[in-house]
Amino acid sequence: MLTSPLAFERLAQDGRARVGRITTLHGTFETPVFMPVGTQATVKSQTTDDLQRAGVRILLCNTYHLHLRPGEEVIEHLGGLHRFMSWPGAILTDSGGFQVFSLARLREVREDGVLFQSHLDGSDVFLGPDQAMAIQQALGSDIAMAFDECPPHPAARSTVEAAVERTLRWAARCAERRAERPQQAVFGIVQGGIHPDLRQHCARELRAMGFDGLAIGGLSVGETKEMMNAVLEDTEPELPVDSPRYLMGVGAPEDLFEAIERGVDMFDCVMPTRNGRNGGCFTWSGKVRLKAAIHREDPGPLDPDCGCSTCRGYSRAYLRHLFNTDEMLGSQLASHHNIAFLQSLMEKIREAIRAGRFAELKAEFTARYFGPHER
Amino acid sequence: MLTSPLAFERLAQDGRARVGRITTLHGTFETPVFMPVGTQATVKSQTTDDLQRAGVRILLCNTYHLHLRPGEEVIEHLGGLHRFMSWPGAILTDSGGFQVFSLARLREVREDGVLFQSHLDGSDVFLGPDQAMAIQQALGSDIAMAFDECPPHPAARSTVEAAVERTLRWAARCAERRAERPQQAVFGIVQGGIHPDLRQHCARELRAMGFDGLAIGGLSVGETKEMMNAVLEDTEPELPVDSPRYLMGVGAPEDLFEAIERGVDMFDCVMPTRNGRNGGCFTWSGKVRLKAAIHREDPGPLDPDCGCSTCRGYSRAYLRHLFNTDEMLGSQLASHHNIAFLQSLMEKIREAIRAGRFAELKAEFTARYFGPHER
Repeated sequence: MLTSPLAFERLAQDGRARVGRITTLHGTFETPVFMPVGTQATVKSQTTDDLQRAGVRILLCNTYHLHLRPGEEVIEHLGGLHRFMSWPGAILTDSGGFQVFSLARLREVREDGVLFQSHLDGSDVFLGPDQAMAIQQALGSDIAMAFDECPPHPAARSTVEAAVERTLRWAARCAERRAERPQQAVFGIVQGGIHPDLRQHCARELRAMGFDGLAIGGLSVGETKEMMNAVLEDTEPELPVDSPRYLMGVGAPEDLFEAIERGVDMFDCVMPTRNGRNGGCFTWSGKVRLKAAIHREDPGPLDPDCGCSTCRGYSRAYLRHLFNTDEMLGSQLASHHNIAFLQSLMEKIREAIRAGRFAELKAEFTARYFGPHER
Repeated sequence: MLTSPLAFERLAQDGRARVGRITTLHGTFETPVFMPVGTQATVKSQTTDDLQRAGVRILLCNTYHLHLRPGEEVIEHLGGLHRFMSWPGAILTDSGGFQVFSLARLREVREDGVLFQSHLDGSDVFLGPDQAMAIQQALGSDIAMAFDECPPHPAARSTVEAAVERTLRWAARCAERRAERPQQAVFGIVQGGIHPDLRQHCARELRAMGFDGLAIGGLSVGETKEMMNAVLEDTEPELPVDSPRYLMGVGAPEDLFEAIERGVDMFDCVMPTRNGRNGGCFTWSGKVRLKAAIHREDPGPLDPDCGCSTCRGYSRAYLRHLFNTDEMLGSQLASHHNIAFLQSLMEKIREAIRAGRFAELKAEFTARYFGPHER
C-alpha cells in the first residue's frame, strides 16, 4: 500500500456537510472547494495571476484536449503541466473518459479502451486506462482520475450495468498503475446512472481498490435535479468518510448547496467562464445578464457585495457597454467575477459548516438568489 | 487667451529629437510617448490595471465609436470617460474625422460638417467641428482633437488643397469652442497630403490659432515610408517648439525612431493590440509570430530582454499553444507584451536622447531588430 500523496483532514461537520483540508505537493486548500476548468491548460480569459487573486488554489485540466494539443510529451518536455501553464497551485486532470464518450466519434469500445476519432481532425486516437494514466503521469497533475465509461442519460439499465462493470475493470487497472508515480493521487469514478444499487455497488468496489478519493461521474448529463440529488443521497453512505468526494461537472450555486448538504467536498464546472463569456453572472442577489439594456446607465458594480477586481473597478454600465460592443474585456471581467464569486461562496459555506449553520446559510442564500431582485 | 490646461516642458534635446514632460489633470508623463488605442473605451483585452503595469500613462479613445455606442450622454451621466472606463491616467480623444472619412459611408460633406451613415446600422449621423467638440467635452478627455478632413492617398492636389482649407476653417471653429471647457486641451491637426507647401501652410495657420499642441494627420494611410519621412522633415520647421507634436496612427518601432528623429513627441496606433491578437509580437530581436511551429517546444520567454508579466510568466511554447488552440488568453498576453514593449522602447529612447546618443540607439536597435534573428 502506498502512502497517499494527498492528505485529507476533516475539520468540521454539520449534518453531512463537511469542511476538510487537502494537502498536495502544490499547496493546501480547504473543502468544499470549487475548481475552475482549464480545458486546454488555460482557464479561458484568465491569467494565473487573475486566478490566484480570485482565491483559486486548485483547477482542473482536460487530459483528452491536452493529449490532442499540444500532446503530453510536449508538456512533459517543458517540465510538466504546472510549469507549462505557469500555475503554482494544485491541478486535477480528468481522465478523458467523459470527452471520449461525449465529444468524439466512437469507433470501437474494446476491453482495453476506446478507439475514436479526434473531434479536431477526425484522426484515430486510442484511449484506455493505460493511456489515460500514462498521459496524466506525463502531465504531472496532483490528482489523476481513473478512466471511466460515462453512459448517456437516459440509457437502458443493461447499458449502465455494462458501463459500471467496465468502469470497475478499468479502475482496477488505473489503481495498479498508480505506483508508477507515487507523488500523484488517483481518484476512482463512481458510475451507475440513476440506479441506486448500481451506484452503491460501484462505490463499494472502488473503495476496496484504495483510491485517494472518489468522484461521482455521469451526473449533470441531462437528468433532473431531483434525480441528481437522489443519486447523491443514495450513494453517499457508500463513499469513504476519510477521503474527498468529488461531484464532477457541477457548478450552479443552488446545486453546490444540495451536493454539499449530501457530503460532497469537491466540484468543477465550466459554468463560470462559459456563462461569463456571454455576460451571464452570478451575484448574491441572483443571476444578472450583463447584455440587458437595464444596465445601460447603471453606475453601480455588478455585485455590491463582491470584492473582486471586476466589482471594485467597473460599473454595470461599462460592463454592459463591453458586451454590447463585443469587446473581449467584457468576457474577461465577467469570467473573473464568476470565478471569484464561487470561491467566496465556498468560503461562506465552509464558515457556515464550522458554525453549525449550513442550513441557515442555504435558506438565506436561496431566498436572496431566487428572490425578487433577480434580473 | 486661456491658460493652457496642458503644461509642456522641454527637458532634453539631441538633434531634433526631444524629451519633454506633459502635465495634465490626470497625471504627468514624459515624451516621446506612445498611446495605446482604446477605440471603444477599452484597449482590447487589457484591464486598466494591465495598462498601468505596462507603464501606460496616457491612452487614446475614439470619439466616433463612443458617439455611436454608448453615446457621450451616457458617459457624461456616469461621470466622464475616465470614470466610465476606470482609467486614472490621461486620455486623448480623436475628433472622429479620420473614422468619418475612412469607415463610414459619406452622404454629404457640408461647410459645417459631414453627414454620413453609421458603419453599424446605416443610420444617418452628422459630425462637424461643433459636434466633435461637444462630444469630446462631454467625454471629458484631457486632450481633444480638432475636427479635420483627412483626404485619401493618393489624391489630386486640388482635393488635398480643399481639405486643408476646410480643415483650417473647422479648426478655427474648434479653437473658438475651446473656452467652453478650460480644463481640456485642444490640438489642431495638420493636413496637406504629401505636399510640403500645403503642410507648411496648414501648420503656420494652425499655430496662429493658439492650440495646445499640433498633430500631423493624414499619414500612414498608404504612402511610402520615404514619403512619410519627407513630410515630417518638411513640416517640422513650421511646428511650434514649445508644445507637443503628435504623429497620428504610427506605431511600428522603426517608424517611431524616424519620427522622433524628426522632432515628434506623441504617437498612437492599434498595432500592438491588433497584431497581438494575431500572435504578432515585437521583441528586441525582431518580430515574432507566435503561431509558428518553431516555438512548439521552446521553454524560453517571448523576449528574454523584456520584463513584462507575459515574458516573466509564460514560455513561447505555452503562448504558441494558446494561439494554436484559439484561446483568448493568447491575445491578452501577446497584446500586453506589445504594449509594454513600446512603453519600454520609448523609455530607452528618452534615456538615449538625454545622454545624447539617440543616433546610436537607433542604429543598435535597427541592427538587432532587423538582424538575422528575425522570425
